[in-house]
Amino acid sequence: MFETAEVGNEVSKADFKKEVPKLRVDLLEAQNTLAKSDFSLMLLIGGVEGAGKTEFANRLLEWLDARGIETHAWAEPTDEERERPPFWRFWRVLPGKGKAAFLLNSWYTSPIINRVYKKNDEAEFDRQLDRVAAFERMLAQENVLLVKLWFHLSKKEQKKRLKDLEADPDNRWRVTPRDWKFHKRYDRFRKVSERAIMKTNTSEAPWIILEATDRRYRDLAGVRCILNAIRKKAKEAAAQPKAEKTPDLPKPKPKNVLRSMDLTKKLDDKNYDKQLEKLQGRLALLARRLREESKRSLLLVFEGSDAAGKGGCIRRITQALDARNYQLRSVAAPTDEERARPYLWRFWRGLPRIGRVTIYDRSWYGRVLVERVEGFAKPEAWGRAFGEINAFEDELTEFGTIVMKFWVTISPEEQLKRFKDRQEKAYKQYKITEEDWRNRAKWNAYEAAACDMIERTNTERAPWVLVEGEDKNWARVKVLRAVVDALERELS
Amino acid sequence: MFETAEVGNEVSKADFKKEVPKLRVDLLEAQNTLAKSDFSLMLLIGGVEGAGKTEFANRLLEWLDARGIETHAWAEPTDEERERPPFWRFWRVLPGKGKAAFLLNSWYTSPIINRVYKKNDEAEFDRQLDRVAAFERMLAQENVLLVKLWFHLSKKEQKKRLKDLEADPDNRWRVTPRDWKFHKRYDRFRKVSERAIMKTNTSEAPWIILEATDRRYRDLAGVRCILNAIRKKAKEAAAQPKAEKTPDLPKPKPKNVLRSMDLTKKLDDKNYDKQLEKLQGRLALLARRLREESKRSLLLVFEGSDAAGKGGCIRRITQALDARNYQLRSVAAPTDEERARPYLWRFWRGLPRIGRVTIYDRSWYGRVLVERVEGFAKPEAWGRAFGEINAFEDELTEFGTIVMKFWVTISPEEQLKRFKDRQEKAYKQYKITEEDWRNRAKWNAYEAAACDMIERTNTERAPWVLVEGEDKNWARVKVLRAVVDALERELS
Repeated sequence: MFETAEVGNEVSKADFKKEVPKLRVDLLEAQNTLAKSDFSLMLLIGGVEGAGKTEFANRLLEWLDARGIETHAWAEPTDEERERPPFWRFWRVLPGKGKAAFLLNSWYTSPIINRVYKKNDEAEFDRQLDRVAAFERMLAQENVLLVKLWFHLSKKEQKKRLKDLEADPDNRWRVTPRDWKFHKRYDRFRKVSERAIMKTNTSEAPWIILEATDRRYRDLAGVRCILNAIRKKAKEAAAQPKAEKTPDLPKPKPKNVLRSMDLTKKLDDKNYDKQLEKLQGRLALLARRLREESKRSLLLVFEGSDAAGKGGCIRRITQALDARNYQLRSVAAPTDEERARPYLWRFWRGLPRIGRVTIYDRSWYGRVLVERVEGFAKPEAWGRAFGEINAFEDELTEFGTIVMKFWVTISPEEQLKRFKDRQEKAYKQYKITEEDWRNRAKWNAYEAAACDMIERTNTERAPWVLVEGEDKNWARVKVLRAVVDALERELS
Repeated sequence: MFETAEVGNEVSKADFKKEVPKLRVDLLEAQNTLAKSDFSLMLLIGGVEGAGKTEFANRLLEWLDARGIETHAWAEPTDEERERPPFWRFWRVLPGKGKAAFLLNSWYTSPIINRVYKKNDEAEFDRQLDRVAAFERMLAQENVLLVKLWFHLSKKEQKKRLKDLEADPDNRWRVTPRDWKFHKRYDRFRKVSERAIMKTNTSEAPWIILEATDRRYRDLAGVRCILNAIRKKAKEAAAQPKAEKTPDLPKPKPKNVLRSMDLTKKLDDKNYDKQLEKLQGRLALLARRLREESKRSLLLVFEGSDAAGKGGCIRRITQALDARNYQLRSVAAPTDEERARPYLWRFWRGLPRIGRVTIYDRSWYGRVLVERVEGFAKPEAWGRAFGEINAFEDELTEFGTIVMKFWVTISPEEQLKRFKDRQEKAYKQYKITEEDWRNRAKWNAYEAAACDMIERTNTERAPWVLVEGEDKNWARVKVLRAVVDALERELS
């Protein structure tokens, strides 16, 4: 794979001098295009040690308008990073549309190094690369332009480069013992990197391997790649149709998981009070264990039609929790910083630390519910969201987060009754809006979307719990019991 | 001070039951008012251990629409927090307008505990309280409604409360050894807290001391305080005049610090090249020492008229730095998350970790320059900004950040020459906009604003360096030398 980058590409000093002024103008123009666009740029500068990744970044920052471009090179994770899934640190720095970030290492770094030093086996390595590929595909589809450069040096050339740097008093410090350690494993690095590149060389986020032996060639070629990528992306964006036709409303199947729920289930007040008290007592203890003794956290997601009683279920949970240990979030309109990034960003940025309980009253599932039904997301966007959401929850559960998702169901008749009740009781009026009535008119479409959602995202690690909501007592106790059972199982 | 909260206030069960429905409606209405308003709410729930701070927060969260309200209770700082000034953790959680945050401890907690345990002397304690008062004043003036409740129990009552809790199997866990440790020092806590309250009981952010012996009284009275505060604030906000007259443009004094600069200072190319190389070499080494051996960081601020050559000076610095170790920021239009918070928030949120270099091409000084001259900030807002900025920089330097501020000066004639030059050279065209010409027309006003700024914010800890920018060689070397000298002084 790297042979094409060992052919002696070079650029003479004279040619370089001739090329640069034009290239700088082009680069600034491209940056201007980017600034006005709907996409952002993430530039991954990868490659072998000594190939001049930082040198190239410095050059770029000099040629570009460096303001606002963030350069990242991660070291050991901070403790806040350690308390979230590994990709959190990358989500944190996603540039907003019109902006750019340069990554001097990335999500490839630790998989590759771990594989070189055999801390990963081949299967685990491949799994990590698959995750990377999925992550990059999602980014690309969510309008993050990924430019992935790989600077290559032959083994001989790497040795020469490191020796030259060491001989230069100004640059000696750039060569660390780690560089020499890596150099000794050049062949293994080459083999492992080849596999990483091969497995992640997708059409959405292709790798570009560049011969880095000649600095002038490396810089010109690297900059041209960036230029071309921005131009191509801008062209594609311009070609996309702006106007959308009204979405086809999905229709529910006559028999489906929601309709087959037994909404007559009930719990009388006396039993309810007894069980509520018992379950809340257990939950209080379990939440303390979660906080104090575990490396886990708990994430609860509530979805369901309006007035299904999500809020009531949630309150029965929070009553047992200490305000210091939980966060109740709801999904309002995104801020402009959120709109400027992939839709899961707002959920990644809010991920709680270990030991906490986070409750979502509506969630990322809005993508495949309201955004689908109302046509806010295009079919291809909500269509791929099922997989993206599964991947997201998979990262959470793999990290140790306990993820539970509740769908609270009521009948249309019960909803109408509750809407009317809300309009009558003064302190409940804030709960009922025009939008609720509009959504109600699309009951069938929402039901169909919910069935699709449950079918496609009901995973073993992050299961949906279907809650019969017609009787509030029943629903609240069912939810509480499910949470308590899950915590007991997971914490033991 | 606390005697008024030991008089036996209580509310009967019947009265409580009668009051609550109305109060809940009022509370939801107030939350609705808040949601639509331009201010945010920070509720500090302070007081003695056992008084039920968390209980009260839980109650409030139950009565309110808890979604989106963040409750915070800080433990030990994380390592990311430790790498920033102590108040960073509080800035991080400032709610945006329309939102609320409940703080179960706050910027009072550690000063009070440290004083009780005599880790602070009285002078240091007072200094911390002064800082708190200034911080709160700034928040209040920047539209953060602070409601500070202090829940009081007598010593006898505290003991009883802790014992009662311990006797209750469901609540036993709430009582920690720390509570009893604190109880033993009740008198000292009382004395220290009294001083804290006294010194920070300002008109912008008054304390409300509440008798917490009777839980029903505590909850009703606490909620009423919050209600009243929101209503009062909403009324004040409505009363504020919306329309602003055009600002008076400030006029420069005939003799001022900028005019008395000697703009004929020059450096020939040969000397420039020699010194540049030498200084950049030294800077490269110093930046490495900063990163690897110190607990410091470096913050450089560049201000000056358009085309004064800030960018060129900055590039001569960044050329000596490793892209991994510096961040170049510029101040563009704030995002809506930034606009929803005090203006310094955007700078606090971006504070770098220890060891890094951050360079601002324009900065928070925009508040007293462009925002003043163009009338974006009201006179009272930019007028108090000098003090707020000094306090901000004081926190930075006290934490160990090396803060340097450069004002680069050119003559109006030189500016005109450079503007024309930019319009001619293709790759410089992006640098010149209509706005530059508009600003140029207000040269005198900007000069006067800059003189005011330098006069009022030129502190010993964070000094302004005035740079003669007419000759680029001179300016670049002067800036580089100043940075190198400061680093050498501070790192030795």
